[in-house]
Amino acid sequence: MTDSRFYRRQGPFTLAHLAELSGGELSDPSMAERLITDVAPLYRASADDISFLDNRKYVQAFEASGAGACVVHPDLADRAPEGMGLIVTSEPYRAYAMIAHAYYPQSNAEAGISPQALIDPTAKIGADVRIEAGAVLCAGVEVGDRCHICAGAVLRDGVSIGDDCYIGSNAVLSYTVVGNKVWIHAGAAIGQDGFGFAMGPKGHLKVPQLGRVVIQDDVEIGANTTIDRGAGPDTVIGEGCRIDNLVQIGHNVELGRGCVLVAQVGVSGSTRFSDFVVAGGQAGITGHLKIGPGARIGAQSGVMRDVPAGQTVIGSPAVPAKEHWRQIGMLERLAKKHGA
Amino acid sequence: MTDSRFYRRQGPFTLAHLAELSGGELSDPSMAERLITDVAPLYRASADDISFLDNRKYVQAFEASGAGACVVHPDLADRAPEGMGLIVTSEPYRAYAMIAHAYYPQSNAEAGISPQALIDPTAKIGADVRIEAGAVLCAGVEVGDRCHICAGAVLRDGVSIGDDCYIGSNAVLSYTVVGNKVWIHAGAAIGQDGFGFAMGPKGHLKVPQLGRVVIQDDVEIGANTTIDRGAGPDTVIGEGCRIDNLVQIGHNVELGRGCVLVAQVGVSGSTRFSDFVVAGGQAGITGHLKIGPGARIGAQSGVMRDVPAGQTVIGSPAVPAKEHWRQIGMLERLAKKHGA
Amino acid sequence: MTDSRFYRRQGPFTLAHLAELSGGELSDPSMAERLITDVAPLYRASADDISFLDNRKYVQAFEASGAGACVVHPDLADRAPEGMGLIVTSEPYRAYAMIAHAYYPQSNAEAGISPQALIDPTAKIGADVRIEAGAVLCAGVEVGDRCHICAGAVLRDGVSIGDDCYIGSNAVLSYTVVGNKVWIHAGAAIGQDGFGFAMGPKGHLKVPQLGRVVIQDDVEIGANTTIDRGAGPDTVIGEGCRIDNLVQIGHNVELGRGCVLVAQVGVSGSTRFSDFVVAGGQAGITGHLKIGPGARIGAQSGVMRDVPAGQTVIGSPAVPAKEHWRQIGMLERLAKKHGA
Repeated sequence: MTDSRFYRRQGPFTLAHLAELSGGELSDPSMAERLITDVAPLYRASADDISFLDNRKYVQAFEASGAGACVVHPDLADRAPEGMGLIVTSEPYRAYAMIAHAYYPQSNAEAGISPQALIDPTAKIGADVRIEAGAVLCAGVEVGDRCHICAGAVLRDGVSIGDDCYIGSNAVLSYTVVGNKVWIHAGAAIGQDGFGFAMGPKGHLKVPQLGRVVIQDDVEIGANTTIDRGAGPDTVIGEGCRIDNLVQIGHNVELGRGCVLVAQVGVSGSTRFSDFVVAGGQAGITGHLKIGPGARIGAQSGVMRDVPAGQTVIGSPAVPAKEHWRQIGMLERLAKKHGA
Repeated sequence: MTDSRFYRRQGPFTLAHLAELSGGELSDPSMAERLITDVAPLYRASADDISFLDNRKYVQAFEASGAGACVVHPDLADRAPEGMGLIVTSEPYRAYAMIAHAYYPQSNAEAGISPQALIDPTAKIGADVRIEAGAVLCAGVEVGDRCHICAGAVLRDGVSIGDDCYIGSNAVLSYTVVGNKVWIHAGAAIGQDGFGFAMGPKGHLKVPQLGRVVIQDDVEIGANTTIDRGAGPDTVIGEGCRIDNLVQIGHNVELGRGCVLVAQVGVSGSTRFSDFVVAGGQAGITGHLKIGPGARIGAQSGVMRDVPAGQTVIGSPAVPAKEHWRQIGMLERLAKKHGA
Repeated sequence: MTDSRFYRRQGPFTLAHLAELSGGELSDPSMAERLITDVAPLYRASADDISFLDNRKYVQAFEASGAGACVVHPDLADRAPEGMGLIVTSEPYRAYAMIAHAYYPQSNAEAGISPQALIDPTAKIGADVRIEAGAVLCAGVEVGDRCHICAGAVLRDGVSIGDDCYIGSNAVLSYTVVGNKVWIHAGAAIGQDGFGFAMGPKGHLKVPQLGRVVIQDDVEIGANTTIDRGAGPDTVIGEGCRIDNLVQIGHNVELGRGCVLVAQVGVSGSTRFSDFVVAGGQAGITGHLKIGPGARIGAQSGVMRDVPAGQTVIGSPAVPAKEHWRQIGMLERLAKKHGA
């Protein structure tokens, strides 16, 4: 049961309806009319709730769960406790997401512009926009339809954002052009000067940063993440990227479509990710590299060379995964043999 | 001498009084009435000041110090310069803390609600609260007694905080329930969506995040730290935890009582820390793990497996400390022998 | 061509003028009067633009560039395409910076104090200052001449800043004394309590943090970076330092002049950097260390011991660079030989 101070629920829905909207199959059609009122985690779900199993680590919780229904992969369906309704699908997490969206549709925050928002008269604002008290829109800002600008967010001079965007509290955007359906979480800092200066023994000379940050459609950017604008080229975040909290993106970086950067990753200047690259938490990628499509970078890895398409690299310095694990294994064996 | 623009001092106090309030023993009772006016670091302390020695690295500074008095462990007391008053205790840092609190009691910021704070009429505010200009309290927010909400802090819809809390400037809380005596420093972002989506080649589908962040009593959370709310379960920060700056806590994480997370640590989703776990700076802990009570995780370590109670692990991937140092030692020896 | 929503350009200038102001030499004096209207990256530059080549990785782009002129090192000048004007210098990046400053002088933001800024009546403000809507200046704050305080920035009680400073949106300063020509980017949190407490099984006792942060002249501090104030001594950032985004600086740390800390570096309490130390991205430096002048710390390194002047260290734990690469090389060879 969600906390009513924060969430408002739709429903209830029948199992048949949930199976249909999620693209899964109801394993026992006699349960089609069973009413489900909410989603809940396995360990907490009751007979009125639907849950999901997506990670083998939680099979025991699944077996012991009191959930009225569950979304599950066919391989694990036979582990279900008796009486549980099952929606079977090869993608249980995705199916669960669709069901959860039915109960908790993306909040259509009430439109309205707070009289306590600080809006420059030259700003252009679309229809059905929500702008909260304390938000700041500077000169020449453009905001599309149905956007939600939270308290304390700052859109600096000339920033433009498309339709259906969410800008979290105290996020700061400058020198930035944002597409549609972009979510930027609290405290993200986007578009400030890149770390550009000519080092020298008599002092470091700042290099003017003259590009922008371009964020394409359907991107999510985590809390307190930082993205520097380009030095001359733009910094580009490709369509559908998912960037977690406290990530650092240097100037001129380009991310292709659908890249996933887990928390605390750092990408140095001018590096280019192709489409669907995944970087694990705290990984660091040196500047001026090319990371091929579908490459995967292990958590905490330090990438110092280009990575070919589809390759998985791990370690610091990062090497192909197989090589990494061979080194780790050998180190363990040798330490046992030679160790004092 | 502290900077009077920032600090107001109490006192002076006699050495006898300081020994008593700190639980230490005055090594030379004839000094009981010596008046001490301030605390100061060893290298800067004068005859009116009391200092402390807690780290053997600073024994030389201790020997050379002009401090009128010092808090010190019995093992090091004989290194004191002549004439220095000594308060001897097995916990000098703790004793020093109590003395410093006497000279600089936690600032009872003057109560009062700024007319320039942006407070929704439905917010409920306790007694003797200080709310500064530019702070934002949204609909349904509840604030306990004697809280201090700094300029630019944002408490979003439905957030509740207990008594005696401090919310730093530009911190953002959403979907969060906070206990008593909690300190949240500037820029922390707490309660935003976790990093939840079903990955897929046609795009990543966002999974609604339906839990909360629950912060128990007596917790301190560092500047620009990020804590995502639970996906269905809550994210829980246990009583007495100390979390440093720029730490990332993923959705559904649970920290037990008294855990210490040093700066830039990252904890991935659904991992559970038992009580009194310590994680060194920049350590990363993978998701869905169990870390036993009293476990210690070395700085920069990458933890990929459960850690049993009381164990110390180091390295990336992390292994028990003894094994780690054996590997490091062997690597050094081999490189000397075989190296080009 | 820069985006006119964000940038206003000066010029055009002749090649002779650009050569003179940048200290470079025009390789073909017959081109002295060629008019150049803008700076641009090699791949995008046209006949009216000047570009630069500073990294051998981009020699191909240089050879194929349509730029009317380029700043280049003498060693690479002969790779230029025919007809390109060349300004030759041993420091092309620095020369380019000077040229870019000519086209895009540091924005003299229009002076003026927004009536929507929240300024305590006891604050003292210099001449020609710009303070934006939503900025907060608390009691006793002092701001020098020609400063620019952005929307949402908070200067807490007693903070003072010198002349020609820039304080980005939603940055927070407390217990801090700032020199002249200091740039602090969006969301930086400076001066909060250090991570000081006496650990104990019955709870961790907070130690009052009684120092300040002192930031000397000509310093740049990145977005969402955190700098804790001293515990008793001050935390000091030396003249000319460049600190990137998401860096953590613990209490009592002292940085000498001209240090460079790349993104996500963490420096633990009481460590001292001498002048011109460089720390690569995500490096971590343990507390109470001394890092000698000109030392270089590799990205992701974990420094656990003092580093002598001029030494380069890499790895976690960090060792001298030569030793590190010898270990890495040996590990690779052994894994190939012994690996399964």
